[in-house]
Amino acid sequence: MRIVKKFGGSSVANAERVLNVARQIGEDVDAGHQVIVVLSAQGKTTDQLIAKAREISPNPSKRELDMLISTGEQQSVALMAMALESMNYKAISLNAFQVGMHTNRVYGNARLKLIDTERMQMELERGYVVLVTGFQGINRYDDVTTLGRGGSDTTAVAIAAAMNADRCQIYTDVEGVYTADPRIVKNAVKLKEISYDEMLELASMGAKVLHNRSVEMAKKYNVVLEVLSSMTRAEGTLVKEDAKVERMLISGVAADTNVARISVVGIQDVPGMAFTLFNLLSQKNINVDIILQSVGREGTKDITFTVSRDSLEDALAILRENAGQLKYQDLQYADNVAKVSIVGAGMISNPGVATKMFEALYNAHINIRMISTSEIKISVLIDERDVQVAMESIHDQFKLYQISQQ
Amino acid sequence: MRIVKKFGGSSVANAERVLNVARQIGEDVDAGHQVIVVLSAQGKTTDQLIAKAREISPNPSKRELDMLISTGEQQSVALMAMALESMNYKAISLNAFQVGMHTNRVYGNARLKLIDTERMQMELERGYVVLVTGFQGINRYDDVTTLGRGGSDTTAVAIAAAMNADRCQIYTDVEGVYTADPRIVKNAVKLKEISYDEMLELASMGAKVLHNRSVEMAKKYNVVLEVLSSMTRAEGTLVKEDAKVERMLISGVAADTNVARISVVGIQDVPGMAFTLFNLLSQKNINVDIILQSVGREGTKDITFTVSRDSLEDALAILRENAGQLKYQDLQYADNVAKVSIVGAGMISNPGVATKMFEALYNAHINIRMISTSEIKISVLIDERDVQVAMESIHDQFKLYQISQQ
Repeated sequence: MRIVKKFGGSSVANAERVLNVARQIGEDVDAGHQVIVVLSAQGKTTDQLIAKAREISPNPSKRELDMLISTGEQQSVALMAMALESMNYKAISLNAFQVGMHTNRVYGNARLKLIDTERMQMELERGYVVLVTGFQGINRYDDVTTLGRGGSDTTAVAIAAAMNADRCQIYTDVEGVYTADPRIVKNAVKLKEISYDEMLELASMGAKVLHNRSVEMAKKYNVVLEVLSSMTRAEGTLVKEDAKVERMLISGVAADTNVARISVVGIQDVPGMAFTLFNLLSQKNINVDIILQSVGREGTKDITFTVSRDSLEDALAILRENAGQLKYQDLQYADNVAKVSIVGAGMISNPGVATKMFEALYNAHINIRMISTSEIKISVLIDERDVQVAMESIHDQFKLYQISQQ
Repeated sequence: MRIVKKFGGSSVANAERVLNVARQIGEDVDAGHQVIVVLSAQGKTTDQLIAKAREISPNPSKRELDMLISTGEQQSVALMAMALESMNYKAISLNAFQVGMHTNRVYGNARLKLIDTERMQMELERGYVVLVTGFQGINRYDDVTTLGRGGSDTTAVAIAAAMNADRCQIYTDVEGVYTADPRIVKNAVKLKEISYDEMLELASMGAKVLHNRSVEMAKKYNVVLEVLSSMTRAEGTLVKEDAKVERMLISGVAADTNVARISVVGIQDVPGMAFTLFNLLSQKNINVDIILQSVGREGTKDITFTVSRDSLEDALAILRENAGQLKYQDLQYADNVAKVSIVGAGMISNPGVATKMFEALYNAHINIRMISTSEIKISVLIDERDVQVAMESIHDQFKLYQISQQ
């Protein structure tokens, strides 16, 4: 089997963990597999490098920041190669130049375009474990780029696709994908399988197991993903097209607390006003999530929407700057809200799912402030303090603790 | 003018020093010069990375060690680019891949073969300060190599040669080349100029201002070097072909304490024995410096030679392993010795120089254990505890404190 394995920064944070991961890789080699490993920078290395940059310049250029922080992954792959060599495995580290990991030219948030397979193929054929720097690429100018958040996951999936790997294993600090965050819902159950679409909805809802971009790429190239823990040897969760979540309406419930709500009250009820409003926000790269429009007094309407809490200040600033154009009567906002969502391919053919969710929240005396739905997802906005009770109630209501995939 | 400037690790050890060096570079830009800067890794970065490697493997492969430690210089050039940008200068960092810094394939101690000039030329023409990683290259396999000790000096000289720079400035922690180490000989004088050959002899004798390989390359390509301090703005020492050291027999005295003496006593006096002995050592990359051969008892001879103190253990091990073949009677050694040398192009035409040196040592009651001479250098091996007195006596004897190059 040809396997791509990706380990995050905490899995390789110190010498002991590097050696531990090397032993795991060695087991795959012993079992006769061809192994490509994608690594992130060790522990807090990237943060430390960014702090170093800020000591010198408050606003360093993204090109130079990429040049700086990409050294972290190069250190990880070299150290892992040494660890494998010390155990008498053949291993070779490769950076983005050596692999030929081509991206577009956007520094700090580049997209992979093309991966040269020749060098990796040659090293695998020579019997080497290939260790590749995650998170980084080179652009058409031969400059180093980085892929943005979750970039190493994307590197791993892209390599799995380019190299026709049988499986792409993403090692994280959790044992897999759960019906809910086990730190919040005590009887949450680990899923054996989940579909790409369900995983995408979970990821976008704050279940920080896999980054969206990597799941999208896995779906596009039909790469079988496995989410598992580098600390335990427990079986993980497979993410694939034909995932079977037996007899269950939904496969999980997730909460996102990086949410804020903004209400633009008493905006003129003329055509194009909503477009003008959201266009102003999108021009500044502010993503709007749930939108609710309601009729206000005297020929006006109220538009309420959510943004990430990180961008609340920016969004309010834009709305205030353009108060003259938007002609609203009042601006209200709240950042003590949270979004709770349920996801499941099963809900497409089961219209009662939403009702069941609302019933759970009603029984728990939780106010629903906004609602948003897609084919396989229902999200509600509630007060942040209600998150734990809401998740437990929903989890119980759908009997997710009974999930069984044997 | 086109200038190549090289700063060592201590000159860029922290944010404050990086900004200080950036200001110096900025002055050259303001004066209308084209500037290429070669940087070493910050402060103790390389040592820290090597320590990290040793935590994982007692004997990491040189390929992976090069991959690891080459990240240090990449961090330096990126940080320096940020510092220059923050002062509104245009600057771009380039690593060995981006420049096209081709070396032979020897990891850990590679030799530069060819430097692509296209990218650097383009960036200079666009008005950018070009910041290049010192100490590293890439080999024919696209693997990272490092150049060994003094590697960043070599990078700077090689770039100055390839880019036809008018001057190559090497910034160190001393203000230039002195008639003797000012920490040992109080009235040592800074030289205004020195020839390549004299500089080579001084370097090989332990005056750790410039690495031999870089001076050799400067001589070969006739690159005018300037040795100066990054801390003060004092004028440095020019190293060039037609250096004028007026009316002085010698230009400097230097001491090297990284020396050990080995005596192979009672070796058979048959042809080829010396060859066998030194061949065994050279096969293990042990450099022998001064050699003395003397007649021993009963058809035997004694061979005494010096090696660097670092390689004493290895040398002794080789001699012991091959005792059967070499058939010596005894092996003696000492590591409390030092080599003191005088250098000067003037001594070629002045046969009394050696006598004058020996007279100084005799007057100071210092025993000479071995002697070695070249056209422009005389070295003596003495006890280590006598080094300071020896250097002061020689410095006084030749009136080096009177040196004047105005």
